Amino acid sequence: MNDIMNKKLNELRQLQLSMFGKDFLLTWEKSLDDIKATLLVAEIIKEMHKSNIATRIFDSGLGVSIFRDNSTRTRFSFASACNALGLGVQDLDEKKSQIAHGETVRETANMISFMADVIGIRDDLFIHEGDRYQRQVADAVQFGFEKGILHQRPTVINLQSDIDHPTQSMSDLCKIKDHFGGLENLKGKKLTISWAYSPSYGKPLSVAQGMIGLMTRLGMEVTLAHPKGYDLLPNVNELAAKQAKESGGSFNITHDMKEAFQGADVVCPKSWASFGVMEKRRDLLHAGDQAGLKELEKECLLENKQHINWEYNSEVAALTNNALYMHPLPADITGLNCEHGEVSHEIFDANLYDTYTQASFKPVVITAMILLSKVKDPVAKLEELVKAARARLANN
Amino acid sequence: MNDIMNKKLNELRQLQLSMFGKDFLLTWEKSLDDIKATLLVAEIIKEMHKSNIATRIFDSGLGVSIFRDNSTRTRFSFASACNALGLGVQDLDEKKSQIAHGETVRETANMISFMADVIGIRDDLFIHEGDRYQRQVADAVQFGFEKGILHQRPTVINLQSDIDHPTQSMSDLCKIKDHFGGLENLKGKKLTISWAYSPSYGKPLSVAQGMIGLMTRLGMEVTLAHPKGYDLLPNVNELAAKQAKESGGSFNITHDMKEAFQGADVVCPKSWASFGVMEKRRDLLHAGDQAGLKELEKECLLENKQHINWEYNSEVAALTNNALYMHPLPADITGLNCEHGEVSHEIFDANLYDTYTQASFKPVVITAMILLSKVKDPVAKLEELVKAARARLANN
Amino acid sequence: MNDIMNKKLNELRQLQLSMFGKDFLLTWEKSLDDIKATLLVAEIIKEMHKSNIATRIFDSGLGVSIFRDNSTRTRFSFASACNALGLGVQDLDEKKSQIAHGETVRETANMISFMADVIGIRDDLFIHEGDRYQRQVADAVQFGFEKGILHQRPTVINLQSDIDHPTQSMSDLCKIKDHFGGLENLKGKKLTISWAYSPSYGKPLSVAQGMIGLMTRLGMEVTLAHPKGYDLLPNVNELAAKQAKESGGSFNITHDMKEAFQGADVVCPKSWASFGVMEKRRDLLHAGDQAGLKELEKECLLENKQHINWEYNSEVAALTNNALYMHPLPADITGLNCEHGEVSHEIFDANLYDTYTQASFKPVVITAMILLSKVKDPVAKLEELVKAARARLANN
Repeated sequence: MNDIMNKKLNELRQLQLSMFGKDFLLTWEKSLDDIKATLLVAEIIKEMHKSNIATRIFDSGLGVSIFRDNSTRTRFSFASACNALGLGVQDLDEKKSQIAHGETVRETANMISFMADVIGIRDDLFIHEGDRYQRQVADAVQFGFEKGILHQRPTVINLQSDIDHPTQSMSDLCKIKDHFGGLENLKGKKLTISWAYSPSYGKPLSVAQGMIGLMTRLGMEVTLAHPKGYDLLPNVNELAAKQAKESGGSFNITHDMKEAFQGADVVCPKSWASFGVMEKRRDLLHAGDQAGLKELEKECLLENKQHINWEYNSEVAALTNNALYMHPLPADITGLNCEHGEVSHEIFDANLYDTYTQASFKPVVITAMILLSKVKDPVAKLEELVKAARARLANN
Repeated sequence: MNDIMNKKLNELRQLQLSMFGKDFLLTWEKSLDDIKATLLVAEIIKEMHKSNIATRIFDSGLGVSIFRDNSTRTRFSFASACNALGLGVQDLDEKKSQIAHGETVRETANMISFMADVIGIRDDLFIHEGDRYQRQVADAVQFGFEKGILHQRPTVINLQSDIDHPTQSMSDLCKIKDHFGGLENLKGKKLTISWAYSPSYGKPLSVAQGMIGLMTRLGMEVTLAHPKGYDLLPNVNELAAKQAKESGGSFNITHDMKEAFQGADVVCPKSWASFGVMEKRRDLLHAGDQAGLKELEKECLLENKQHINWEYNSEVAALTNNALYMHPLPADITGLNCEHGEVSHEIFDANLYDTYTQASFKPVVITAMILLSKVKDPVAKLEELVKAARARLANN
Repeated sequence: MNDIMNKKLNELRQLQLSMFGKDFLLTWEKSLDDIKATLLVAEIIKEMHKSNIATRIFDSGLGVSIFRDNSTRTRFSFASACNALGLGVQDLDEKKSQIAHGETVRETANMISFMADVIGIRDDLFIHEGDRYQRQVADAVQFGFEKGILHQRPTVINLQSDIDHPTQSMSDLCKIKDHFGGLENLKGKKLTISWAYSPSYGKPLSVAQGMIGLMTRLGMEVTLAHPKGYDLLPNVNELAAKQAKESGGSFNITHDMKEAFQGADVVCPKSWASFGVMEKRRDLLHAGDQAGLKELEKECLLENKQHINWEYNSEVAALTNNALYMHPLPADITGLNCEHGEVSHEIFDANLYDTYTQASFKPVVITAMILLSKVKDPVAKLEELVKAARARLANN
């Protein structure tokens, strides 16, 4: 057996797992051991894929995806994860369905689940609603399962909500762990999550929230920076502060960009909408008020423009401790896809390896989330797969 | 072997099967033994899925779906059925295809079938045309197969036409059979299929037609109720009358809702468009006459409104013999998704277990239809799968 | 072992293969041995499918398709090919993705490739750009692979570009080979590729280019006929002339339709846009100039109309040597889907077997392209699969 896989399986054996039969909605609902297990399983799956070892555990079965917003990365990551485990993927395209005809969430959730093993949901357009919707789906399939309507309860996986973006933040953590050679090396490392200027609006808050909600558990010195008015959800900020205290790290909020990046080991400069904008937007979207949305966009872009200097460029990068540059992609890149953006062209191009490998963890993180919720003894199963070493591609 | 599966395999052995290599377009084109076999295979597949036993018979292969109307339940049921047997699903989205460029049905049918094993078609928008289209596809692949163009002839499955909705009515029969403990207990049971008020228009007639076309073969006392003007296709009514006579049951049409429900053992109150509306609508759809369609909708809704009291509520339910409430879903529910609908909120909520399990049979009914048309000796094959008991999810 | 498969495997053993790890973008970038190998593998796969022998070599994996134009045949052919080898298919629908948000080709290509084995791209709308885009994707995944971002480099397959349409031309060659009983019989055979009138505009040039770019390598006497102004890309014409010389065949261009068909053994009468129209159209498409596009269409249709007599009908067919009629479909058929088209109804209908079987090779040609680029020793692997003769459909 490959040494890396062996080592990681050994680490996995030390952990107390509690993800079997559970949804994955918010990282902070998971024990630290479960977080660590998800990373380890993701890394093992990645190593297996690299070594052409089959990871299939389902002979047949369906993964259902529901995307209420456009998506490339997350869509392909979810499809890849399902495929790697042997599940077919069926997208619930709400435009092609009869959902508009007054179907309830409970009904739809059960109707798509008779033979479904996983339901992945991206719902980040509506602040205060995305997480709620995912819980409605989870409750609905729980109801169906308890009543004997469903033979098995599909696992609900949050592919981005208004609150958290766990498949992203867990991929980020995979990357940080890999970069610094282990979670044990993160204690005391300075992580800066900063708002950055973008000529677009309505970007969800959940990427930043996901990061502060996860990284504060690992003893890091976490700084959140943004112009006034671009606050995150207050309870996530509170949670981050509490967790930082418990983990022996820290959590600070500043409105001074340069101060924020001083001495940082890891940086994530990324745009998001202001809180107030998201609330107005949600109401206008619900009302179908196109003119209002246009008007709000104009206002919002004007508001953003006041902070056009919040760009991550070589001058800002020079303040850091040769920081790892992170971005969930796609980025607004000055001089490439916009006049002024989140990051300078030079910095973005210099860090392609890092942002691309950061993204490369997402498919295996989702694979790990599904596997850990579906398999009773994941260590035994992974060991069996690794030992069998059945070829994924039967290439002689 | 699980006792239920064993018992059902034994029952299956007693039947004369003739579905191999055949399409499934109308239930009344099938022998009663084939109907019974489809139910039994569906039930065995359901039991296998519940027991985590793999049902895959294809190593590779494609199921093609063509949906000419929105769909959630049927789309996911077809995808689940294909997946359970090992087929990938490819949707023929007519908007993304070149069909508009003057391709004939014969051509398209052959072009998508070189490696296809099944073609599922929903085409219920156009009265007098849906069934015809499905037969054109069936003839086209027959032509291709006979000419040596296609190696295998894909099975055509009716996922709803203007005439019948066999995957629905067969699921309904699964539910009724389960509820009363066997087909032999249906003799003399009173089934009421009733029109119900809905604030929408253009709902297909084929759900009701499918029910009277199937249930009259089982010795049931079938009543069809609707306001004057909401007639079903005359030849389906005639067929129902003939079949009822042969099976020792009865078939009556009434325009008095309360009379219809008196003493019923099973009820299906469900809206459909009036016949005349469907014909006008078809012509307007073909002409692309949006203004005409709007006007027709208005007229039709006004027409419906005259029968707003055709609601299934506790008062009506009290007339029945504690009837099983059925609905193909989604329903128009008074006070939930409309002001006045087909059913009261209270009644609908009290019967969720029944309507949801009714729907739960659809994926396995479709699986059974495919399996019976593809496998020469289905009893032997199912026995082999059940005995092998390969895990669907290799969960240790 | 089946004699046909055995014979073809023997032929395959004689060839020098160099497709492992390579993209398939233009047939003329491939050695003649690779072309022959692709045909042979396609024929073996077809025979295996016919004999119900499983062709799966992937336990899991993804084929990604990118269609920048509508497609039925190619979409289903690609999906069938992926499925036959065990790959799931995921379509990159640019409307549902975030590509509009300023993502670069390099980024998208890597983001969809973490677990992808093949990327099929149809991009023929924009002259001078489709091939370039496919090479950008190929370079991007090469970059990702070399940097260690991707574990495996997905193979890029041209599903139609502005320059070539290799999955079409290779299917055409399969058909021609089959019709004349072997490639060795093509020497001296007269092939006429002719422009034909169509009441539509903007049809890509790459079908005709693909044919002259491939068939001139086989010693055929190739004639290209079109009205003045409907030239193909000049460098493809030059290439065809050079190749014809080398192969002992010939390549001639004429503007006289009747002369072109005189004594032809194979004909492909097919419409395409004039070069100038395609260039104007590209600019208008980029500018999003809908009014300009309408205007151009009008002009172009008027231009086409001057050549309305370029129809393939029984009078023209009589000039040929009882020629094999070919068309990539769908065709514009006089009196069937248009008033005046590329071919008379009578001729089209008389040749359905030929045009349909011509199309039937596309799924297996794509299967062969993938297999040859993924499997190190394709002869050994195919021999193993054929000997194992695992049933595709476990039909007792």
